[in-house]
Amino acid sequence: MHKKIDIVTAIAALTLEEKAALLSGQGAWETAAVERAGIRSITLTDGPHGLRKVAPDAEQFSFEASLPATCFPTPAALGSSWDAGLLTEVGEALGAESRAAGVDVILGPGVNIKRSPLCGRNFEYLSEDPVLTGRLGAALVRGIQSRGVGASVKHFAANNQETDRMLVSADVDERTLREIYLAGFEHIVKNARPWTVMAAYNRINGVHAAQNRRLLTEVLREEWGFDGLVVSDWGAVADPAAAVAAGLDLEMPGTNGVSAARLVTAVRAGEIEEAVLDQAVARLLTLIDRTAEPSGEADFGRHHDLARKAAAESAVLLKNDDGILPLNAGARIALVGEFARTPRFQGAGSSQINPIRVDNALTALAGDFAELSFAPGFLLSGEQDPALLTEAVAGAAVADVAVLFLGLPEGEESEGFDRRHLDLPAVQLDLLAAVAEANPNVVVVLANGGVVEVASWRHHATAILEGWLTGQASGGAIADLLTGRVNPSGRLAETIPLRLADTPAYLNYPGPTYGERLYVGYRYYDAKDMPVAHPLGHGLSYTTFGYSDLRTEVDGDTVRVRLVLTNTGPVAGKEVVQLYVADLDASLDRPVRELKAFTKIELSPGESAQVAFELQERDLSYYSPDHGRWVLEAGDFEIAVGASSRDLRLTATVTVDAPVLAKPLGPHSPIRDWLAHPTGGPLLLKAMSAGQDASVLTDPAIFRMVESLPLSRLAAMSGGLLDIDLLLETTGR
Amino acid sequence: MHKKIDIVTAIAALTLEEKAALLSGQGAWETAAVERAGIRSITLTDGPHGLRKVAPDAEQFSFEASLPATCFPTPAALGSSWDAGLLTEVGEALGAESRAAGVDVILGPGVNIKRSPLCGRNFEYLSEDPVLTGRLGAALVRGIQSRGVGASVKHFAANNQETDRMLVSADVDERTLREIYLAGFEHIVKNARPWTVMAAYNRINGVHAAQNRRLLTEVLREEWGFDGLVVSDWGAVADPAAAVAAGLDLEMPGTNGVSAARLVTAVRAGEIEEAVLDQAVARLLTLIDRTAEPSGEADFGRHHDLARKAAAESAVLLKNDDGILPLNAGARIALVGEFARTPRFQGAGSSQINPIRVDNALTALAGDFAELSFAPGFLLSGEQDPALLTEAVAGAAVADVAVLFLGLPEGEESEGFDRRHLDLPAVQLDLLAAVAEANPNVVVVLANGGVVEVASWRHHATAILEGWLTGQASGGAIADLLTGRVNPSGRLAETIPLRLADTPAYLNYPGPTYGERLYVGYRYYDAKDMPVAHPLGHGLSYTTFGYSDLRTEVDGDTVRVRLVLTNTGPVAGKEVVQLYVADLDASLDRPVRELKAFTKIELSPGESAQVAFELQERDLSYYSPDHGRWVLEAGDFEIAVGASSRDLRLTATVTVDAPVLAKPLGPHSPIRDWLAHPTGGPLLLKAMSAGQDASVLTDPAIFRMVESLPLSRLAAMSGGLLDIDLLLETTGR
Repeated sequence: MHKKIDIVTAIAALTLEEKAALLSGQGAWETAAVERAGIRSITLTDGPHGLRKVAPDAEQFSFEASLPATCFPTPAALGSSWDAGLLTEVGEALGAESRAAGVDVILGPGVNIKRSPLCGRNFEYLSEDPVLTGRLGAALVRGIQSRGVGASVKHFAANNQETDRMLVSADVDERTLREIYLAGFEHIVKNARPWTVMAAYNRINGVHAAQNRRLLTEVLREEWGFDGLVVSDWGAVADPAAAVAAGLDLEMPGTNGVSAARLVTAVRAGEIEEAVLDQAVARLLTLIDRTAEPSGEADFGRHHDLARKAAAESAVLLKNDDGILPLNAGARIALVGEFARTPRFQGAGSSQINPIRVDNALTALAGDFAELSFAPGFLLSGEQDPALLTEAVAGAAVADVAVLFLGLPEGEESEGFDRRHLDLPAVQLDLLAAVAEANPNVVVVLANGGVVEVASWRHHATAILEGWLTGQASGGAIADLLTGRVNPSGRLAETIPLRLADTPAYLNYPGPTYGERLYVGYRYYDAKDMPVAHPLGHGLSYTTFGYSDLRTEVDGDTVRVRLVLTNTGPVAGKEVVQLYVADLDASLDRPVRELKAFTKIELSPGESAQVAFELQERDLSYYSPDHGRWVLEAGDFEIAVGASSRDLRLTATVTVDAPVLAKPLGPHSPIRDWLAHPTGGPLLLKAMSAGQDASVLTDPAIFRMVESLPLSRLAAMSGGLLDIDLLLETTGR
Repeated sequence: MHKKIDIVTAIAALTLEEKAALLSGQGAWETAAVERAGIRSITLTDGPHGLRKVAPDAEQFSFEASLPATCFPTPAALGSSWDAGLLTEVGEALGAESRAAGVDVILGPGVNIKRSPLCGRNFEYLSEDPVLTGRLGAALVRGIQSRGVGASVKHFAANNQETDRMLVSADVDERTLREIYLAGFEHIVKNARPWTVMAAYNRINGVHAAQNRRLLTEVLREEWGFDGLVVSDWGAVADPAAAVAAGLDLEMPGTNGVSAARLVTAVRAGEIEEAVLDQAVARLLTLIDRTAEPSGEADFGRHHDLARKAAAESAVLLKNDDGILPLNAGARIALVGEFARTPRFQGAGSSQINPIRVDNALTALAGDFAELSFAPGFLLSGEQDPALLTEAVAGAAVADVAVLFLGLPEGEESEGFDRRHLDLPAVQLDLLAAVAEANPNVVVVLANGGVVEVASWRHHATAILEGWLTGQASGGAIADLLTGRVNPSGRLAETIPLRLADTPAYLNYPGPTYGERLYVGYRYYDAKDMPVAHPLGHGLSYTTFGYSDLRTEVDGDTVRVRLVLTNTGPVAGKEVVQLYVADLDASLDRPVRELKAFTKIELSPGESAQVAFELQERDLSYYSPDHGRWVLEAGDFEIAVGASSRDLRLTATVTVDAPVLAKPLGPHSPIRDWLAHPTGGPLLLKAMSAGQDASVLTDPAIFRMVESLPLSRLAAMSGGLLDIDLLLETTGR
């Protein structure tokens, strides 16, 4: 056991220089120590889906010299599992590997919302929906931290593009920020209590995330009750003094004393109070205190099995015509595509793991079928090779089913830059078309972190299995699904659009303008009533499920929802039951429907289960910028339950009561709001009638033209006859 | 002749109180006078498409008590004429009527861009395109002012919605503001030199338009050279002192001395210098000096004829299957729809004219056909009346052609509120369906100011003639077009979308977020590659036109374009030749194509004409926020000429040379820009190599992840080894 630190005493014993030194790192991955005061350094390393600890003797910023670790499926895959329990298990394994390696904080999970499918880092994120992101992110954090290792929830906040990530400002309105980009973080902070949160590179409405007091102090700590440490993304601090003043506690990586000197100068110049540094140091010492000695050994064998299970739970069966999957054991199967032999299983950048081992589907499927052939079909480089294509088509022509392994090239997905298109490489699509011509029974297995366009080629495929970037056990997982040893149960955590031009941020991405506001992902396609290739929540199974007996009950702000789910098909399987809410009476624009709850349930053939959800006030509320808080408005809400956002099986309408919130009145409030006010309205009418013609208020034809006139302007135009101070006083302002 | 004012002397003779009093109005429509100093009051009244002078003895804010005047077609119609000469003629008539009535300034034209078809005031605006708006607006101003009457170009600026018009802030990025919302104003100010510009109700990026120094002083006067007076929209001034300081010269209407007192206090408190008031007073006196004595008499007969011609030039023939139009004189025609007898010809609000006379189509068509019947078909109230429907269907059934007069109800289009949908009333669509069932030969004549949805019902119509709100001579003009006495030559000045949900601002309108940025109107549909009902520039004719022999010539920044247009059809007609430019090599996102020039040409059957355009630097440039000015980038541009934005007949690519503009370098510029700089790049590399590992700059895999790192942060992370001041000095900063 590390010795506990008496924080108050320790801070009192530190010099200003020592405090300042503690607030930025020592080198790339460690915090500074003050041995004199018994303050040790701790280690933070990359790894949202696997540990990336750089070998001690290697160049510390290298992406290639990390120690071997289990590469779990990327979050793009894990998000598609819709299985919080699974994410906790993965988190526990990540925590155990970190603990064994002496890592104190693992820099993940990444929980940014997928604003555009082009984001180069989408493979590291969970979903386009904040509820799904929040629930799964919290589960992952709980798992990691259960092993005595801290999580770092990142990238806080609105870090939705890689292009110019250190320059761009996410110019986003408060409601969108709250409902879309912060809600996932909020859920995780409140429910999983992460030890650290990582401030992002970008600015938000002009202010750097890492020196954004509103974000790091007012929202994160004061509103949400965050009690951990805020660390900067690596290189995200522009001005150390402004950052610490805003609520950042630890700048990473180290700057060889430059930042510390700046802090000392700032304190001496009265720019920032020493007490602010004390607070940040206290948070660092608290974090150090939470960490534990290295212990245990990573069980890489068990973790590999978990990675395989997780990958199988996460793959989404997009299409399965004629029940072509699972494949018949007696069939002659042609595996086509280099990815069957050389799987694409992770993305590039800080999350890139040096895996313990890598399975491929070719090996994993050996012995499963009457015949199994393999042809690489294409070069990973993207260059055309007619001989490879010819060989692959020939192999496919004599098989019962051709299984094509397609995906994005490794170099297309990484932090640091965004994708420019959603297309699979031409060489792969040419291969697909040629194979489909030779054999109508084509199964496509996809490997990609960001969404790829499927609408232009899906007619060539009888079935499509979207595997995402499935981690090191990819091969076995895909084999399990193709053979039916595992029944697919992944569901889309993001919409697959028909084409890039349809996507919500198409005309603004990458860039500062969050013009689609809260209409991100399915919220956009539903609001614009647009067709998509596959909607959020979609995913097929080898069995079928029936939904029945929806019951709703309103109890104050709580809505209880129950229904019965039945496995109506031939085999056991898991269904993700999804609950969407629509506000039918909102006084402002709200999405057509929003995911508010979900659960994943396994049922044997013929088996039924009772499914219950409980919605709280927040699940029915919107964020009101007028009132600066979440607001529940009385009225009707539609509760819809189904198998995807566009496969809603049962709906019910509930009526919820709530107090009416008067609009705050001020001298510049519109006369419409004044007239609607219980005491302000009559007063205003009386004052106007006394002084002059009140027809501007009482004649509907005139009133509808001036209803947004601020009271102050009416007062001015009345030539002083309207006493605005008196009105304000009398209405209690 | 009014006596000329010696402005310097006059101002010197005025007390502070008198100056302050001059800067807001006297009552609703007049400026204040200072008789002692020989400063007379002048009159400003409504009337973008007709004079609305309130009768002297009436309630001055009433919309119903104005003196009779010619009601010309609304700008929504005039914009569709694409005929600058016609707009000048209309302007001359407006000017003449104003001069005769003793009006000094007429409060128009309204040249706001149609951001959404829902804007309640779209009938008062010209187009969704700034070039079309600017050219036509300038023509109207020239016409008005040629008669010694001032125009007031409004509503400056970004006043694109009526909902909350006095509260809302148009939150719009600088490039969009310049390229879309200001460009029309800019053209008019520079080319037609309006006497006044009207500051709008709304705020822009948080700042009231009427107290927006950037807008009223820096852009309007300093950049564009505006030498006239800025008047507020009626009631748009929140703080008179802030307004005058920002460059507003005249607040309207009067405030019984409240504003003057505020100005005096502000000067005495040192909040604003008296010299600033002097400047505003000088501008007012200059305006007064420009005005002339009332003279002449309005020739209402000639103006009615002009209104008829203008209406006929503005109507757009959207569809004309089987050449059903023009109608055969020998045919039996059933006129259906109350609008044939009671035309809808203008909108409500400040632009509502008390017309001299109103023609209807029923009367105008009398005697033109073998048989002519009429049935009202529906009630203007929108209530269903089965008897009217039955009668109309019976009449249509026995005719050769049924001509249906449909349109929006009067109450749906006005300033002060926005529309909620694009639909024709159900009662009218029911009538259309019933008539179409009884008679397949249906011609629909539309009367509406804002666009209506046509996609859901156009299959019922063999022909559709969009008349817009055509002014008092509507009846005769429609008769001229239906009979073929006039060949339709109007072209859409705005896109007709397939449905409301397709429109660019659908999810943000009404509201502050200009999320579609510069992708307004056709720019949006083209960028998103979406189908529309009818594209910008569309409009059919009773003849056909051939385009040939496109020639382009680049001469420095000038591109000369010539082509040959031929009337290839059976009758004389006018074609609007439209020139669109696409920037093929832009370094930032630009619209797929943009209208840059157009001309309307009349040709006899078989006749050909040479058409020539000259594009200047500005026509190829974009507004660069980085450089704070319009920038022409070297590269290829596609020049496309055609009959609509989606009926491009001839294209050519030209290559234009231009100096390369280096990005301005600063301490926070990204290392990408530093490396690209001719002197900064080598310096930075040298400095990095000297101090430490330069692989962050030279290793492509690392560099692409950090290219947006600000130099200042690289310097901090280098631990002080990189001397940023030295770098800045050496690169000449």
